[in-house]
Amino acid sequence: MPPAGFHDIAHLGSVELFSPVPEETRDFFVDLMAMKEVHRQGDSIYVHAWDDYESYTVKITGRDQAGIGRTYLRAASPEALQRRVEAVEAAGLGAGWSKTEYGHGPVYLFTDPDGHEMGFYYETEWYEAGEEDRPSLKNQASAFPGRGANVRRLDHVNYLASDVPAARDFMTGTLGARPTEQIVLDDGTPAAMWFSVCNKSYDLVFTSDWLGARGRLHHVAFATDTREDILRAADVFLEAGIHIETGPHKHAIQQTFFLYVWEPGGNRIELCNAGARLVLAPDWKLITWTQAERAKGQAWGLKTIESFHTHGTPVL
Amino acid sequence: MPPAGFHDIAHLGSVELFSPVPEETRDFFVDLMAMKEVHRQGDSIYVHAWDDYESYTVKITGRDQAGIGRTYLRAASPEALQRRVEAVEAAGLGAGWSKTEYGHGPVYLFTDPDGHEMGFYYETEWYEAGEEDRPSLKNQASAFPGRGANVRRLDHVNYLASDVPAARDFMTGTLGARPTEQIVLDDGTPAAMWFSVCNKSYDLVFTSDWLGARGRLHHVAFATDTREDILRAADVFLEAGIHIETGPHKHAIQQTFFLYVWEPGGNRIELCNAGARLVLAPDWKLITWTQAERAKGQAWGLKTIESFHTHGTPVL
Amino acid sequence: MPPAGFHDIAHLGSVELFSPVPEETRDFFVDLMAMKEVHRQGDSIYVHAWDDYESYTVKITGRDQAGIGRTYLRAASPEALQRRVEAVEAAGLGAGWSKTEYGHGPVYLFTDPDGHEMGFYYETEWYEAGEEDRPSLKNQASAFPGRGANVRRLDHVNYLASDVPAARDFMTGTLGARPTEQIVLDDGTPAAMWFSVCNKSYDLVFTSDWLGARGRLHHVAFATDTREDILRAADVFLEAGIHIETGPHKHAIQQTFFLYVWEPGGNRIELCNAGARLVLAPDWKLITWTQAERAKGQAWGLKTIESFHTHGTPVL
Amino acid sequence: MPPAGFHDIAHLGSVELFSPVPEETRDFFVDLMAMKEVHRQGDSIYVHAWDDYESYTVKITGRDQAGIGRTYLRAASPEALQRRVEAVEAAGLGAGWSKTEYGHGPVYLFTDPDGHEMGFYYETEWYEAGEEDRPSLKNQASAFPGRGANVRRLDHVNYLASDVPAARDFMTGTLGARPTEQIVLDDGTPAAMWFSVCNKSYDLVFTSDWLGARGRLHHVAFATDTREDILRAADVFLEAGIHIETGPHKHAIQQTFFLYVWEPGGNRIELCNAGARLVLAPDWKLITWTQAERAKGQAWGLKTIESFHTHGTPVL
Repeated sequence: MPPAGFHDIAHLGSVELFSPVPEETRDFFVDLMAMKEVHRQGDSIYVHAWDDYESYTVKITGRDQAGIGRTYLRAASPEALQRRVEAVEAAGLGAGWSKTEYGHGPVYLFTDPDGHEMGFYYETEWYEAGEEDRPSLKNQASAFPGRGANVRRLDHVNYLASDVPAARDFMTGTLGARPTEQIVLDDGTPAAMWFSVCNKSYDLVFTSDWLGARGRLHHVAFATDTREDILRAADVFLEAGIHIETGPHKHAIQQTFFLYVWEPGGNRIELCNAGARLVLAPDWKLITWTQAERAKGQAWGLKTIESFHTHGTPVL
Repeated sequence: MPPAGFHDIAHLGSVELFSPVPEETRDFFVDLMAMKEVHRQGDSIYVHAWDDYESYTVKITGRDQAGIGRTYLRAASPEALQRRVEAVEAAGLGAGWSKTEYGHGPVYLFTDPDGHEMGFYYETEWYEAGEEDRPSLKNQASAFPGRGANVRRLDHVNYLASDVPAARDFMTGTLGARPTEQIVLDDGTPAAMWFSVCNKSYDLVFTSDWLGARGRLHHVAFATDTREDILRAADVFLEAGIHIETGPHKHAIQQTFFLYVWEPGGNRIELCNAGARLVLAPDWKLITWTQAERAKGQAWGLKTIESFHTHGTPVL
Repeated sequence: MPPAGFHDIAHLGSVELFSPVPEETRDFFVDLMAMKEVHRQGDSIYVHAWDDYESYTVKITGRDQAGIGRTYLRAASPEALQRRVEAVEAAGLGAGWSKTEYGHGPVYLFTDPDGHEMGFYYETEWYEAGEEDRPSLKNQASAFPGRGANVRRLDHVNYLASDVPAARDFMTGTLGARPTEQIVLDDGTPAAMWFSVCNKSYDLVFTSDWLGARGRLHHVAFATDTREDILRAADVFLEAGIHIETGPHKHAIQQTFFLYVWEPGGNRIELCNAGARLVLAPDWKLITWTQAERAKGQAWGLKTIESFHTHGTPVL
Repeated sequence: MPPAGFHDIAHLGSVELFSPVPEETRDFFVDLMAMKEVHRQGDSIYVHAWDDYESYTVKITGRDQAGIGRTYLRAASPEALQRRVEAVEAAGLGAGWSKTEYGHGPVYLFTDPDGHEMGFYYETEWYEAGEEDRPSLKNQASAFPGRGANVRRLDHVNYLASDVPAARDFMTGTLGARPTEQIVLDDGTPAAMWFSVCNKSYDLVFTSDWLGARGRLHHVAFATDTREDILRAADVFLEAGIHIETGPHKHAIQQTFFLYVWEPGGNRIELCNAGARLVLAPDWKLITWTQAERAKGQAWGLKTIESFHTHGTPVL
């Protein structure tokens, strides 16, 4: 059975990335990922992926160092929002309401036990296409860009955490997320854990930070419609001089077809495609990968690249 | 907001198809769709798609005429099951419990207002791979077959109904399904309606039966991982002498990439791929297509084929 | 055995298209087909596909009516050029040398028996990428654009001809092209004939003009690397308001995966992908399709669209 | 300009592989590569890829050790055959005619300077499909199998050679093949050279043998229609327990999308897809990659796997 509160979070809404070169990061998302700049406010630039129904997908905020800012989670209803807020308050991690967040109604601010900033909300602005990006088909948010990596929507966030068990307890006990897969080391420690809040097989991931640091980012991922989009994207990144870290290949864990690049600000970005794989079972049985299984590398034999265990943002 | 009871049905579980040539229908699913025969009982043959987590995907039952038998819907929990049973009983459409259904615990039998047979259950047998189909990756149900259409899982059922508004009221009011898209004729009549019970953009569809008949089938659909799987499948069906009715192409409604064939028993079968499209918004706004919009055909201009409006099973 | 002179023509080099709206035609090729404008001269705009090794791919010339101008054919060597020039002169179809054609050394001008303008040349300018389109991989002509239909190179020209047998005699007897497939009507008349000058299964095609007119165009085709490029292009054209005439689908003849659109000037443009299909046999046996076989439509059952037999340029 | 005699060899015809486990090697080609067993003779099993027009594609011969046997090259005409035979005789590498080779008329036997066995022929048997593999489309050799790696045809052979410069002189001076790309070490030594005999960008490759041995094999490659076929094949090989050595990825050299596996006998087998890339220029300019460029790895950054420089057959 899923944890109590499962489905109270409807889905991952948007994410804030810090960048020391916000304009370059913006160009990466607009020119190569096919997003659209939709808003600027203070030090932040908001960009939108073509089929995200909400008003923006990524908030890029200028900072000295790369890293992840706030993760926004949409509740399934006002009641669901209220239930999760109470649970977070009970956990002592709440920081109160903000009514000034772009694109959303009231947002309840909090952190996870590792210090990653998060926000809950229900009220949201839907994306309104304009003359220049009105889609031909009315059941998509905006026109199909047909350029570069052409990502359809935000997919998931993978956080580095100093304490994965604490993250697990918070995710399942407080947020109502269900773990679908995990890596457990030979000494019994979970090294990484994948959580789902809907039928996607994962939305939020916590990976043990090799430096023991708190609040860092492993990567943010965006979904493409096909694996071919990802192969094409590799050529696009090659020409643009973007650092391709690893891939395209297929993960053994979660079976995602992936490509990892570093955006100009230094944050690791994944392009991912899950094919038709969903987790439909309400009582999905948590899959556990051992240390030895992890050491075998990716699905088709690619060894996991060294920098996957040494590069996180901010770089310490 | 979704209807009350949304999420009580976790997902579409399996479907029974009637066939006058059940062995040929079985060969279609095994040889061309890459399923595996897992059980025989009475006049029925059970076949399983490689990544369905439950024990079977399609129950093929010998009958004089093609058509659809029972649709099996898995509840999200015992409590959810109880709630939906009560709702169906209140609607006067219940037929009591069966404890002899292969692969499931107790199944509550009922019909929709149009007479399509349905069954609710929570307890279910998980598929257990054997020596010959044990997957290399432990997070999939059985080995990747790599042949023919290679469908991953059941996707949706499209029923012909004598009374679409009645079906709509039952789906939303009794089952807690949410409508995501519809066609409404100029006189205000809904001609077809797509319902979702999870994050897939649709699971159950009701299309107006041009003969006014009750309980017939338009098609059953299976999901592939890529559009390329569907292109390859077209060549596979061509060589196998299977009637390709229309496609590959992309629907305007729901944007599904599709191919329609007739299995040897006469039932229309769809292969479908949705890319990364999901309905994540808890308050998704029902999309309405007009008669004129429907007349424009499919997304890239293909005219809807005539037999789409004349062939249903059983053939009358 | 191939005709005498086979291999004297190395390949189809470039093609001139007439357009009543040359700037719109230019935008179609640049914005949607991912070509680059490389030159303007008189009423002509020259555009280049990213992996054509010569200096341009299409010459767009402003004219009152759409249609095809000159087709440029590169000879395999100076000697091969001389041999073909002599053959054309012997056929009485030569028009002498031009030394002022952009991108080429001396071009020998001639027409086919139907009046389509052609030119032979050996000396040619190679495409030189600049700072902004220098490829990361030195074995391609320019940077991978990664936008729109992203066509790699020119593929073939399909001419409408008043007299297909005369075209056949010229193609095989004078140019040394080999026929690889043909449609022959029940009365013995060839209705269309596909000619290859290299290992591609066709480069130049002659289709019987239903109006009996001379010198018209059925379509010009451009090659993409994958079928997925063509599926993506369909979405791109849909959003851009380009008329999609038919496809994506697979031809029975030559098995090409295709999409046909009309560029803003009215000329029919095909996007095509042949997979790994080549004609390697030096003694390839001409494939003949009957009238009945042609009537069956395309490979997967799509009926050939009516406008395929009524739209040619110029429109008469 | 291409070397004298270019086009005398029409294409690579078939290849003989030695295997210590010929039945397992046969099953690899039949079950996973989708070929068909067509003949047995002595210690040899002949298998055919679905769109090779000749009677077989690979001759599997039982031997103590893996390795490559004879490579069969088809001449463009009887005259071309005679010219190449005379050139080989002049080079002192001829071994006379054989009239007993399955599937071919007279075959002129010879070796390259490194001792790899080769055979020239013009007369050949075309593949005749039977009842069970007759294609629906008459322009392909046999029915589309739609299983496993589903390779369409033989693509190329990559030989290990003790003396690459000698191989180069033989290939260009005697066989009339043209080099299209090469790796040249800092000391001026060619480390590998890619030769084309038609419009494919390469057919025969010579790579320097790190052991200085003669007559060994690096790999034999087969062409698929799409990159997706190769991604699917990776899953097929994973399930079948076949050693996946590296890939899927894209080569920088020749830009081929690739996957390398070891067949049960130990020979390295490549699946490759070139997209729409051909070498059409008759005067193609040899591309040279430096030692430093080679060290950068594959197109999208994958480091060349160590075993690529240590595994050849026979294993010494």
